[in-house]
Amino acid sequence: MSIRDFNWSPEEKKIARTAFDKAYKKEMTEINNELKKRIKNSDDLQKIWSIHDYLSKRRNEIDKKYDYRYSVLITVFATLLTEGYLKEKDLEGLSENKLNAIKFLSQ
Amino acid sequence: MSIRDFNWSPEEKKIARTAFDKAYKKEMTEINNELKKRIKNSDDLQKIWSIHDYLSKRRNEIDKKYDYRYSVLITVFATLLTEGYLKEKDLEGLSENKLNAIKFLSQ
Repeated sequence: MSIRDFNWSPEEKKIARTAFDKAYKKEMTEINNELKKRIKNSDDLQKIWSIHDYLSKRRNEIDKKYDYRYSVLITVFATLLTEGYLKEKDLEGLSENKLNAIKFLSQ
Repeated sequence: MSIRDFNWSPEEKKIARTAFDKAYKKEMTEINNELKKRIKNSDDLQKIWSIHDYLSKRRNEIDKKYDYRYSVLITVFATLLTEGYLKEKDLEGLSENKLNAIKFLSQ
């Protein structure tokens, strides 16, 4: 069975949604903190556009990364695990084959 | 003579550059202040992308507006006068035909 074809039980969908939202919030908070740090130093007016460049880059990454379709969720979670926005315990309760696939892809 | 073909003396070029830079700095400071205000309220994480939208819009406007070619400078100054980023006294020392053209276009 391809990782795109896993069946997700109602309980797993709940766990997945919670984990997904948690990672999103964590990454957005990181962006927000970086923004606050950068604005503190922005009285050099040229830095305003570097803040804009930073936001453009991060928005592009976020839009690509946070794709909540079950057909791609395994690879999304693997990425979030690799990048540290999720921990293995956030995914506890998913079936063994899903967890194995996520861990394998995040290596 | 078309407003695109005015001759600019060295003294006028100096006045023009100073006025142009002053308006640019004033508008960028306004953007910076708005940015600081918005980032203060950005703990609602959804607001981060509205900050990005705001900067995209302003950057686009600034890029279009601040065009320091002598062939378009009369219309640039007229816009800056209309929008309040320049005052008539900032342009004192330019020739009468230039001032008349700028005032006419800024009405």
